[in-house]
Amino acid sequence: MSGWPESVEIGEVGPRDGLQNEATVPIGDRVRLIDALSATGLRRIEAVSFVSPAAIPPMSGAGEVMAGITRVPGVAYRALVPNVKGAELALAAAVDEIEVVVSASETHNQRNVKRSVADSIAAAAKLTELAHGAGTPVEAIVSTAFGCPYEGDVPEARVAELAHQLRDAGADRLSFGDTTGMASPRRVQTLLDALAAVGISASEVGLHFHNTRGTGLANVVVAMELGVTRFDASIGGLGGCPYAPGATGNIVTEDLVHMLEDMGVHTGVDLDALIACAHVAQDIVGRELPGQVMRSGPRTRTVETQA
Amino acid sequence: MSGWPESVEIGEVGPRDGLQNEATVPIGDRVRLIDALSATGLRRIEAVSFVSPAAIPPMSGAGEVMAGITRVPGVAYRALVPNVKGAELALAAAVDEIEVVVSASETHNQRNVKRSVADSIAAAAKLTELAHGAGTPVEAIVSTAFGCPYEGDVPEARVAELAHQLRDAGADRLSFGDTTGMASPRRVQTLLDALAAVGISASEVGLHFHNTRGTGLANVVVAMELGVTRFDASIGGLGGCPYAPGATGNIVTEDLVHMLEDMGVHTGVDLDALIACAHVAQDIVGRELPGQVMRSGPRTRTVETQA
Repeated sequence: MSGWPESVEIGEVGPRDGLQNEATVPIGDRVRLIDALSATGLRRIEAVSFVSPAAIPPMSGAGEVMAGITRVPGVAYRALVPNVKGAELALAAAVDEIEVVVSASETHNQRNVKRSVADSIAAAAKLTELAHGAGTPVEAIVSTAFGCPYEGDVPEARVAELAHQLRDAGADRLSFGDTTGMASPRRVQTLLDALAAVGISASEVGLHFHNTRGTGLANVVVAMELGVTRFDASIGGLGGCPYAPGATGNIVTEDLVHMLEDMGVHTGVDLDALIACAHVAQDIVGRELPGQVMRSGPRTRTVETQA
Repeated sequence: MSGWPESVEIGEVGPRDGLQNEATVPIGDRVRLIDALSATGLRRIEAVSFVSPAAIPPMSGAGEVMAGITRVPGVAYRALVPNVKGAELALAAAVDEIEVVVSASETHNQRNVKRSVADSIAAAAKLTELAHGAGTPVEAIVSTAFGCPYEGDVPEARVAELAHQLRDAGADRLSFGDTTGMASPRRVQTLLDALAAVGISASEVGLHFHNTRGTGLANVVVAMELGVTRFDASIGGLGGCPYAPGATGNIVTEDLVHMLEDMGVHTGVDLDALIACAHVAQDIVGRELPGQVMRSGPRTRTVETQA
C-alpha cells in the first residue's frame, strides 16, 4: 500500500499501564522489566506513575523504580502524573517526559480521577507550566477517545475540542487512548478527520489502542494509512484499566513489531529481544499473557522437517 | 476509507476446521452447533469433511451430521473432501458445495495428505468433474498461501500458478488459506498482485486467515481495501490445523462481524445470535475460546452507571 510509512515510533507502556492492574509488583521486578525493555531498541518507555499509593497500590514506589533503573542513552523514560504534586515528584525523579490523562467522557473522568473534565484541564495546564519550567516536555492523552464504557459513543468533536484545549494548555504532544477497546478502523478515520478539522494533523497524533475486541492491529494499519506514525503498545499484552470494566489488554508490543516489520515498516526494535521481555513480563505476573508471537514464534521460525 | 466494500460474505468454518482438532465431538453436538449457526444469518457453513475416520477421528460421521441438521433455506452447507471417494460420499449426503484443498507447499501437502501437489491437482480435477456431473459447485482452497511452517515463505507466483491450475481443473471458486497465521497486510497485497497477474481478480478471491500471530483482522481490512469481499472465520475462534504446528486459531467470526458492522460493512449476520453460538462452541469443547467479543461484549454494551 502506498500509504504505509517507512517507520513508526512505538511507545512501550507495559511497566505502567500494564502492571498497574496487578495486585502488587515488587520494585525489583519493575526495574528488571524496564531494564530489559531498554535493551530492545524501544526509544520511549512509560516507566511509572506518580499517583497516590492508596489509589493504585501497585504503582507505589515510582521514585525508587526511577532510581533503580539503568538509563540507556536515547531512551525516554516517561511518567504519568495526575496532578501538580505528581509532576513535582516526577521532576524530582528526573523523568524525561511527563504524561497527563484527561478523559473525553465526563463520567469516565469522574470515576477515574474524581474530578470534572474542566478541573482536569486546569490541572494539566498547571503541571505543564511546572514541567516546562524544568525543561521537561508533556504529553497529554485524551482517554475514552473512541468510546466510553459508561457513556457509549463519545462525539469525535468533543474529543477534538478537548485535544485542542490541552494543546492550548501547553501540551507538547497529543495522544488518544482507546481505553476499553471500542475503536474500529472507521472510528480511527472519523476521529482523525475531526482532529484535522481543529488543526491537529495525523502526523502529530499518537494512538493508544486496547485489543479488547480484537481490532487493535487493524486500527493501527488504517491509522498508518491515514498518516499516524506513533503508537503505544504493551509488552506481552500486559494491561487494561482498573476503572474501565472489561478493558483487558493493550495491543501487544511484540505482535505489533512482528506485523510492522513484515510490512516493511521500520520500528527500530529487536523482535527477539522483545519476545524475551514478554517472557520476563509473564514471569513477573505469573500467568499467561495474551501476546501471540511470544507463543507461536515469528513467522520466520519454521519447523525443522524430519523427512 | 473509500476502499471498504458495502458488504462482505463470511464463510463459517467452525464445525469443520474448528472442531477437527478436538479429540472427539459427539454427532449431536456438531448438529447443535451447525443448527445454531444456521439461525444467525450466515449463508455459508463448512459443516463437515468426508475424510478417513482413521486420519481425522473427530470428523467421522459426516453423513450422520448432514442427515441430522435442519437445513435452513438460503444457507449453503459445505463439505471438505480429500479425494473422489470423499466427493462421492459428500454428494450422497447432498451437500451444497464441495471444497478441496491443495497446498502451495510440497512439504505441507505431503504431510497433510501424503501426496504430491501434482497428484492433488489431478484428484481435484477428477472430483470436480464428478461434482459438476451432480450439479454441485466446487471451491478449491490453496493452503499455506502466505507461508509454510516447514518451508517458510512460499513464492506468490507459485500460489498464483497453483490457483490457475485449480481453476483450469474446473474449480468454481478459489480461496487462499493462511494455514498457520503467517500473513501480514503486505503479504495480502503481494499475493493479490500475483493473482491479478494470472488473471484472478480480488473480487473472485476468498481469504481464510488464522490469527496465530494476531494479524487476522488487519489482513481482512487491507484485503477489503484491495477488493476482496469473501472471508472465512470460525465461531469463537475454534480451530487450527493438526498438521501445522502452532497453528492455533482461525479468525473469530463474531469479532470479525463486530468490527465490520462498526465499519459500516454489512455482513447480514446477527451479532447477538453469533455470540450465543460462540458460547455453544465453548460449551462443546469445554474450554475458553480465544474470541474476544464473546467475553467483553460488543462495544455498544455499556456499563450501567450507578451514580
